[in-house]
Amino acid sequence: MTTRTRFHEALDNLKCRLLVIGGMAENAVEQAVRAYCERSPELCRKIFENEVRINVVEREIDELAFDLLARQQPMAVDLRFILGIIKSNADLERVGDQAVNIAERVMGLIELSPAELAADVPHMASVAMEMVRQSLQAFVSGDADVAQRILEQDDNVDQINHEIFAAMNHTMEASPQFLRQALHTISIARNLERVADHATNIAENAIFWVRGSDARRHFGIAV
Amino acid sequence: MTTRTRFHEALDNLKCRLLVIGGMAENAVEQAVRAYCERSPELCRKIFENEVRINVVEREIDELAFDLLARQQPMAVDLRFILGIIKSNADLERVGDQAVNIAERVMGLIELSPAELAADVPHMASVAMEMVRQSLQAFVSGDADVAQRILEQDDNVDQINHEIFAAMNHTMEASPQFLRQALHTISIARNLERVADHATNIAENAIFWVRGSDARRHFGIAV
Repeated sequence: MTTRTRFHEALDNLKCRLLVIGGMAENAVEQAVRAYCERSPELCRKIFENEVRINVVEREIDELAFDLLARQQPMAVDLRFILGIIKSNADLERVGDQAVNIAERVMGLIELSPAELAADVPHMASVAMEMVRQSLQAFVSGDADVAQRILEQDDNVDQINHEIFAAMNHTMEASPQFLRQALHTISIARNLERVADHATNIAENAIFWVRGSDARRHFGIAV
Repeated sequence: MTTRTRFHEALDNLKCRLLVIGGMAENAVEQAVRAYCERSPELCRKIFENEVRINVVEREIDELAFDLLARQQPMAVDLRFILGIIKSNADLERVGDQAVNIAERVMGLIELSPAELAADVPHMASVAMEMVRQSLQAFVSGDADVAQRILEQDDNVDQINHEIFAAMNHTMEASPQFLRQALHTISIARNLERVADHATNIAENAIFWVRGSDARRHFGIAV
């Protein structure tokens, strides 16, 4: 096997590991939303346990990427790809952190009496998660067009977050007995907004890798 | 001048640029806290304007780092340093984003009647900012011991955040006329907590660079 082939095998391996951590992070957010819907402390505990595993995989990916850069002298396009992996890796680990934050809020909610609140958390979560899935797909397949569309979607999630904030603010004023529940719900929405922010970061990495262009400056995005 | 010398000059330049973006980010948070204390919409507007500049500098640093990696074949220790710069750069830009988030909340507070709340925002900000300053110093001077102490400080900021959250929760229940003010204050405290999280990320990068060891796994930290 040539050195070049071995290099590309290592690159493919790195790509696979990124998809693995992406799957773990997605899974964690999905579990957190399920824990919210079912008021399940068991699911929350699973999320806390899994966080450690996500951190270990993140570190492994960083070390693999570092070894590849140190041992080989990757061409410009491969170098951009590897730097994109290092950055996307950090974002995916932080998506996992958001799942933990949500689960902590769910634990708080479980201690309180249930409240019917005007916040569609599962809907917001599904929009944010779809952005993560698509941005990761755009990154590994090098599809800058899909990546650009994701950057434009970020406003939708911000909008949903504002709506939930306004609705919970109203609840707190109109039904003070549900103040704590509304406060936890605001936090959960903010955590989901941050999940979407990480998706836009990954989409920017895809554009950086594919085009070598400056997506952030072009879109005036700061995430 | 030898290629090696030119390489180290470029590396020094990169280090200087990182200190520049660090100064800009620090400045933005300081202005945000001043805007909070003085209820100043002018200061808030300055922060919104400066954010664009921080994003431009972030991008310049990324491109300089990429060029250096592409043109030279840095040794392992230099490679770790450059990767650390790329990661710390992203964290410093996001410190600037937190300043923007705080300024948005201050704009909200200015519209409401002033309230005496039991939240020492300037104190929390000074603790978080000191962490950013020290972590950046630890990174550029390669001081892993200072970096480790910063990792241990993160719990203090989390504690202050919890205290402010509990105090504001109490305010909302006891003095519902200040509900919105308390809600904005919770957000500001959370943004400052995220500033401290970015400082711990930079401290981890310092340890990664200096020791090549795995600080995150060792400390079980997920930020």
